[in-house]
Parts: sequence; structure tokens; C-alpha cells
Amino acid sequence: MTDIDFWFDFASNYSHISVMRIEREAAGRNVRVIWKPFLLGPIFKAMGWNTSPFIVHPAMGAYMWKDMERQCAKYGVPWRRPTAFPRLSVLPLRVALIGVDQPWVGDYCRQIMRRNFVDDQDIHTPKAVGAVLTDLGLPADEIIALAQSEPNKLRLRENTEAAQALGVFGAPTFFVRGEMFWGNDRLDDALDFATQGITS
Amino acid sequence: MTDIDFWFDFASNYSHISVMRIEREAAGRNVRVIWKPFLLGPIFKAMGWNTSPFIVHPAMGAYMWKDMERQCAKYGVPWRRPTAFPRLSVLPLRVALIGVDQPWVGDYCRQIMRRNFVDDQDIHTPKAVGAVLTDLGLPADEIIALAQSEPNKLRLRENTEAAQALGVFGAPTFFVRGEMFWGNDRLDDALDFATQGITS
Repeated sequence: MTDIDFWFDFASNYSHISVMRIEREAAGRNVRVIWKPFLLGPIFKAMGWNTSPFIVHPAMGAYMWKDMERQCAKYGVPWRRPTAFPRLSVLPLRVALIGVDQPWVGDYCRQIMRRNFVDDQDIHTPKAVGAVLTDLGLPADEIIALAQSEPNKLRLRENTEAAQALGVFGAPTFFVRGEMFWGNDRLDDALDFATQGITS
Repeated sequence: MTDIDFWFDFASNYSHISVMRIEREAAGRNVRVIWKPFLLGPIFKAMGWNTSPFIVHPAMGAYMWKDMERQCAKYGVPWRRPTAFPRLSVLPLRVALIGVDQPWVGDYCRQIMRRNFVDDQDIHTPKAVGAVLTDLGLPADEIIALAQSEPNKLRLRENTEAAQALGVFGAPTFFVRGEMFWGNDRLDDALDFATQGITS
């Protein structure tokens, strides 16, 4: 079984499509998803942007909203344009880090994305994240306390630095056997590459 | 028959893939290609970039060269990483404007792209452009003189302003019945959209 490293941020709209698709697509090809939550903010800052490039460059942003509508329709992914963008995502990413080796990580990530990009609700408060965890039958308070502990905060910063060191400049980004694939548009190519490794 | 407007710059590497593919793909679906040469430079400048974003952001550039290799292999498009990037493209774009309603425009554009992204040669000199025109059996001196005339120079600036007014922020960009599609990754979607219009 080959792994696909999946670098994502809950603030990222194109990550939404991949979060919704990846486990289904990977399972069909016997590929294992390694969830890699990280913060896009510091990476964009290093590129000279204080927010999403879709805000910095309005023409790019205007196009992106049209493209999202069409792409979500194409992949059968639920979508509503959020009234706030990009949403703060530090707390849900810290919780995702607690979950990366747990069976609930996929369901949790899809629920957070659904809140942001379908239900048009904030995702950064303990109340918001707690509601998702409770819905999944998980001990919300305990997990949030762990997520907010200093070692875990440091771990998210380290993940972000690791992404940057790997050459990540946007999300979603995938790595298969060291090969980098950027964007939901390349998820199929990345999974095909993973499968070729298995069958050859 | 539906039209697809194809906005491209010979300096743009992802335009290379679409220039090589578009006539073949469009013909198979009974869609007519409207060639729209324009200058990316002034549009990037308005976005705060003095050159290609792949030069401005080195991580993005490093990834792009890998992606180009994989994408060209995927689409069966010839490719060699050029030693100069982005190449000056004003003269060949002016000549493309002379050709937009001529039967030679497709062959001409593919030959210019081949020089840049396969043969690794300059494309901005009268000698370079003349060689391509002569190879196509065309009166090179006459066409280049027309291309360099003031009305035609103005026309390229007007095309560039028109692109900007339409919300174009990169190349290739396609329009079908007013719907914008950005990037070679969306060429199939744009052509499918054109075809849906015909058959529905």
C-alpha cells in the first residue's frame, strides 16, 4: 500500500473539494491517506501576501468563486459560497493534528469543511469545533484541551515549517514518494502515480 | 457552431500546452477557435509583479517545471525546459494578430511555441519570426512590416486592455458564451461547455 500525504488548511476553498473526495478516491485505489494539517497564513506571508491571494488579487478571486461552483458540481461536492473568507482555522487544524492517527480524522475534517463551505458558519471557536466533535461521539472538551496544549501548538507550527521546507506554496498539496502535486486538479494524477508504484 | 475565445501569450508555458492541443480538441467537437493574442506583462504588472509569478515566487516556479514535464507527457505535447524564461513575445504576438483570421494562424502559433518550449530558441527577433513564417510558405517581410505598423501595435495593446477588462489574470484563458475558464486544466471543461450549448 502506498501513502499519499495530504497537506491542507480548513481556510482553503480548494482544500474543501479534496477533503470531501480524497478518502473515497484513495480507498478505491488501495492508497492510504496521511492527513497533514498546516497553516497557509505563514506561507502566504512569506510570499508577500497578508491574506489569501484571492483577496489580494480581486480578478483572481472573482474567477475562483465561479470556478468553485463549477468544480464542486463536477465532483458532486456540496458547496455554498461563504459570507466570510478566508475563515480563521487555527483551532480546527490543531484538533485535526490530534486526530491524524485516529479513525475519526476523515469524518472530522469533512464536518469542519462542511461548516465552512456548505453551512457558512465559523470554524475557529471551541463551540464550533466542540459541536463537530460531539456530533461524532467524541469527548470534545478533552480533545480541545489536548489540541490547545503547548506541545500540540508547537506541532502545528512545525508542520507548517515542514510544508514550507518541502516547497509547499498553496493548498491542497499532495506528495507521493516525494513527488509533489499541487491543487485539487492534481489529486487524480497523484493517486494514479501512487497506483502505478503498486502495480509496476 | 459555438466559438471558444482563446487568450494566450507565447511567453506563457501553460499556454504552450493549450496552443498545441486546442485545434485538435476543438475540431473533434465542432467548436471554432478564436485566437486572442495578448500581453501578460501589463496584466502581471497591474497585479504587482514585474515578471512571471513563477520567477517572483521560486517555490511556485520550481513546482511548475515539474508539473510542465508531467502535464506535457500526459497530453502528448513535446516539451523541453527552456534556458530563458519568460521569453520576450511582443513581435510574435503582433504577427499572430495579423493571422487571427487567416488559415495559417494555428500552424504559426504552434511553430512559435515549438521554438520557445521545445527547441529552446528566442522568439522575439524578426529573424526568428521570419524563419517560422517562411517555413510556412508565407511572405515573411510583408507580414512582419504589417505586424510592426502603428495600427497593429495599437491593436495588441487594445487586446491586452480587453483581456484585463474581461477579468483575465493569467494565460491561457478561455471564454465560451461569456463564461471564463482559466488554465490548460480547464480547456476540456470549456470545450464541454461549448458542446453542451450545441446539443441542448
